Amino acid sequence: MKLTILIHCQDQPGIISAVTNFFHLAGGNIVYLDQHVDKQAGVFFMRLESEFEGVSNLSQFEHQFQQGLALPFSMEWRLYKSGTQPKIAVFVSKYNHCLYDLLSRYNSGELEIEIPFIVSNHPDLKYIAEQFKIPYYHIPVTKDTKADAEAEQLGLLKEYKIDCIVLARYMQIVSPKLINAYPNKIINIHHSFLPAFAGAKPYHAAFERGVKIIGATCHYVTEELDAGPIIEQDVTPVSHTHSIKDFITKGRDLEKIVLARGVQLHVQRKTMVYNNKTVIFT
Amino acid sequence: MKLTILIHCQDQPGIISAVTNFFHLAGGNIVYLDQHVDKQAGVFFMRLESEFEGVSNLSQFEHQFQQGLALPFSMEWRLYKSGTQPKIAVFVSKYNHCLYDLLSRYNSGELEIEIPFIVSNHPDLKYIAEQFKIPYYHIPVTKDTKADAEAEQLGLLKEYKIDCIVLARYMQIVSPKLINAYPNKIINIHHSFLPAFAGAKPYHAAFERGVKIIGATCHYVTEELDAGPIIEQDVTPVSHTHSIKDFITKGRDLEKIVLARGVQLHVQRKTMVYNNKTVIFT
Amino acid sequence: MKLTILIHCQDQPGIISAVTNFFHLAGGNIVYLDQHVDKQAGVFFMRLESEFEGVSNLSQFEHQFQQGLALPFSMEWRLYKSGTQPKIAVFVSKYNHCLYDLLSRYNSGELEIEIPFIVSNHPDLKYIAEQFKIPYYHIPVTKDTKADAEAEQLGLLKEYKIDCIVLARYMQIVSPKLINAYPNKIINIHHSFLPAFAGAKPYHAAFERGVKIIGATCHYVTEELDAGPIIEQDVTPVSHTHSIKDFITKGRDLEKIVLARGVQLHVQRKTMVYNNKTVIFT
Amino acid sequence: MKLTILIHCQDQPGIISAVTNFFHLAGGNIVYLDQHVDKQAGVFFMRLESEFEGVSNLSQFEHQFQQGLALPFSMEWRLYKSGTQPKIAVFVSKYNHCLYDLLSRYNSGELEIEIPFIVSNHPDLKYIAEQFKIPYYHIPVTKDTKADAEAEQLGLLKEYKIDCIVLARYMQIVSPKLINAYPNKIINIHHSFLPAFAGAKPYHAAFERGVKIIGATCHYVTEELDAGPIIEQDVTPVSHTHSIKDFITKGRDLEKIVLARGVQLHVQRKTMVYNNKTVIFT
Repeated sequence: MKLTILIHCQDQPGIISAVTNFFHLAGGNIVYLDQHVDKQAGVFFMRLESEFEGVSNLSQFEHQFQQGLALPFSMEWRLYKSGTQPKIAVFVSKYNHCLYDLLSRYNSGELEIEIPFIVSNHPDLKYIAEQFKIPYYHIPVTKDTKADAEAEQLGLLKEYKIDCIVLARYMQIVSPKLINAYPNKIINIHHSFLPAFAGAKPYHAAFERGVKIIGATCHYVTEELDAGPIIEQDVTPVSHTHSIKDFITKGRDLEKIVLARGVQLHVQRKTMVYNNKTVIFT
Repeated sequence: MKLTILIHCQDQPGIISAVTNFFHLAGGNIVYLDQHVDKQAGVFFMRLESEFEGVSNLSQFEHQFQQGLALPFSMEWRLYKSGTQPKIAVFVSKYNHCLYDLLSRYNSGELEIEIPFIVSNHPDLKYIAEQFKIPYYHIPVTKDTKADAEAEQLGLLKEYKIDCIVLARYMQIVSPKLINAYPNKIINIHHSFLPAFAGAKPYHAAFERGVKIIGATCHYVTEELDAGPIIEQDVTPVSHTHSIKDFITKGRDLEKIVLARGVQLHVQRKTMVYNNKTVIFT
Repeated sequence: MKLTILIHCQDQPGIISAVTNFFHLAGGNIVYLDQHVDKQAGVFFMRLESEFEGVSNLSQFEHQFQQGLALPFSMEWRLYKSGTQPKIAVFVSKYNHCLYDLLSRYNSGELEIEIPFIVSNHPDLKYIAEQFKIPYYHIPVTKDTKADAEAEQLGLLKEYKIDCIVLARYMQIVSPKLINAYPNKIINIHHSFLPAFAGAKPYHAAFERGVKIIGATCHYVTEELDAGPIIEQDVTPVSHTHSIKDFITKGRDLEKIVLARGVQLHVQRKTMVYNNKTVIFT
Repeated sequence: MKLTILIHCQDQPGIISAVTNFFHLAGGNIVYLDQHVDKQAGVFFMRLESEFEGVSNLSQFEHQFQQGLALPFSMEWRLYKSGTQPKIAVFVSKYNHCLYDLLSRYNSGELEIEIPFIVSNHPDLKYIAEQFKIPYYHIPVTKDTKADAEAEQLGLLKEYKIDCIVLARYMQIVSPKLINAYPNKIINIHHSFLPAFAGAKPYHAAFERGVKIIGATCHYVTEELDAGPIIEQDVTPVSHTHSIKDFITKGRDLEKIVLARGVQLHVQRKTMVYNNKTVIFT
């Protein structure tokens, strides 16, 4: 059995030795350890993977960790057991490249997740869901039906016990209600190197500005539009020879790769969020 | 003799064949031709290099080009003869990396320019000017002396017949008077991937935002701060492990390389400006 | 109607003006022109796109170009009319990422091609062909059946009038017979930055050598293994923390993107081959 | 006082907790910890930085670490006290860009080292040494004088108590004697992305092969030419439009940046070597 623990607490001497001792004495062999101190905030972050032979008593382990370490050090922590696959709902609109890419990775086992369903405000991508034999819920969103649509979405998310939402070019602003139900668990791909060109039509804005590089940003969704914690970014060079259409074409490849990387980091529990920024353990 | 011509005019049929014919008939062998049409603006851009055996009569050539082509096509054009080195003034403040890099390239003949002098609002980098035996003018700039300082700068620029100004981390806002005297001839390096983090302290802002990529931008200076036509940009990945100090250190390498590329493109007459954007012929 | 012409011939004065004149007089508006001179070889390359109003007489145009220009300049040239989609056969083995990526782009109209069938020496990826409703020919290849397998492949290629073959991680060495039937028309993706790590197991070799960057290379297939003209390459950083498995995972994203770019360049008639190297017009 | 320790030993349970405990009990606050396990080789690597208030008794600390940890775990380890600057000799030939770049960084305090002298087999770069006021030893190397030249070099290295040698485009093959005197302490910059294009004239070979990317590699020198442990690599795109001269120009920027990064990593004690590969702690 492999356990992965994510810890954060106020920075203080002795944490690493205390935690590694604890796992060592509990019979674990530490196969990965990385830590980070945010010196401005005075916060300590840690990710540790440990292998255990035989089946440990997980509840007892958690109890002892809570009493012996988490309480005295005032830690917040999450423990993940290997083999548990997060359930992810994918929200799309009309663009297919991110959806195709995610489902290809999902189908070939690269992403160790479950995708119980796809939601869209348009019927356009239903054919892809059918290709991959995944339920597709077409929930139209108009100004008038927005509240109903959201209730329907929340119903599905609850019914399928969804852990995380991926907005694979969903093109709709997600409401605070949904965001609060999934804090740092809604992953979006934005088609610019944020914070440049937040909001609508970033490729048009980039073209207008005459930049020589375009980018894509994968981030957690917060109430402020395109301003959530950044998980991953990448860029590609452009020149005056490229039209807006070329930007869009080139951007598609960026978007799907950057989104996939962001989702993979989240799924492998390698991300922590603090002060609207991420710690990414690699 | 090699002639390089830069042309722009309204897009219309027949320009390329007319221009290439002209050079062909004048005895030139075209060794480089690149052209670009800005379809939104309907503007045609062209850069052509042509080699001529023996010494042509340049004035006559220019006269014939103006009458035979420029007038009928309503072209704006500039002709450069090989071997003429632009005179460049370098403005610096306290950071030495861009200055060192430019002067190294200058000294080793990589940049085919003249640098008649360096100007700074601080005395700090005088030692570098002395290392490279280039006059260093220390012109302090305070709120009260700004107008005088600028007059002194303009005096020097005129005296030395400067063609182009490079702001190698000058850290001062340049006045409209200077900008108007050198339209699209003042090259600045900004330490962010513009338009993100314009203005002061971009590395601090990038750190605060938690970006995963930082950049540098070389651009022509216009009256709106950090909003001029972009010549060149590049980026480098960062992570949560990097402090602001690390951003600054990594950024130094970006800044000097991006500035040098931008200056080289300008010096080799490979840049054209239109609608606050650049066409970069490579 | 848009015509795209690719020309190469010995470098000599007057080519550009002659060609642009020809298109101009034939009623074409030149919307793209790029040229290149290989100075070592003394060879001139040109790509030109021209729009014509109404339907021109294409045969007559071709005849006149051949007589008036191609003969006097000893040009080799190919003319493409817009709207003709190349027929591409995709060869795969067991890896699915390149196939999924190509078919996603094909299905969404990004690649303007026809894919009449997929060939594989294994049955594993048949399910993907079925997802995308494309015929899948399972042609096993063993030492004994290699000649028969190839004959069967050639039969299919002929029957479907295939223009170009894409080896999307086919993992088999293609015979000279096939290569000669499709000169510079078989596109392969190799999972290293060639010429480093040619041959089998490049990720293992890269890991063993301790490189800090891995790459992928899209190239035309020639008789010498992994030594054909390179169309496109890209790389991604790695470190000591990455296992061979990590190299393979990271490499998959590189491979599919680099292959897709190479195929797109070929399909858009932007590649020319000379002296085992490519000229790539962008 | 800050201590940095580098440890490697056979992988076994309990190392991290033992080491972190040791530093914790000795009054150190661990400000950095990174570790790596080479699973193929079964070797554990660790880098740890710890701050101590007041002046610790370093000899006693080392003795206790050796007895209490290094012996039982069969560790190899090196301890570095903050503030000790390695003494580096720079070897050059005729190319100035790497030398200029290193000296600029040295002069501005970016590289916390001493450069007691520069050695060259040519007199060409003496003027740069004079600009930076560093002794320059011109030691010509011919087939006949090679042994004498090396003896003279070794004499200087000994006299100045040199810790590390940087070959900043030295262009000479270094003898086994020198390599054995400085194991994993001679840093070279090679102008290709190794293992592609090892040996002489890599830009010519890259041009000949028609690659779309060129690179530079910083590595420790071993007896096999260009085959030592790689510290750092980077690349830049090229195309058919670039001549060999363009490759060389673009390569210069790569070389100087990659060499500077490699030197900085070494100087900051962030590199470990094992099985001809590096572990780079960042």
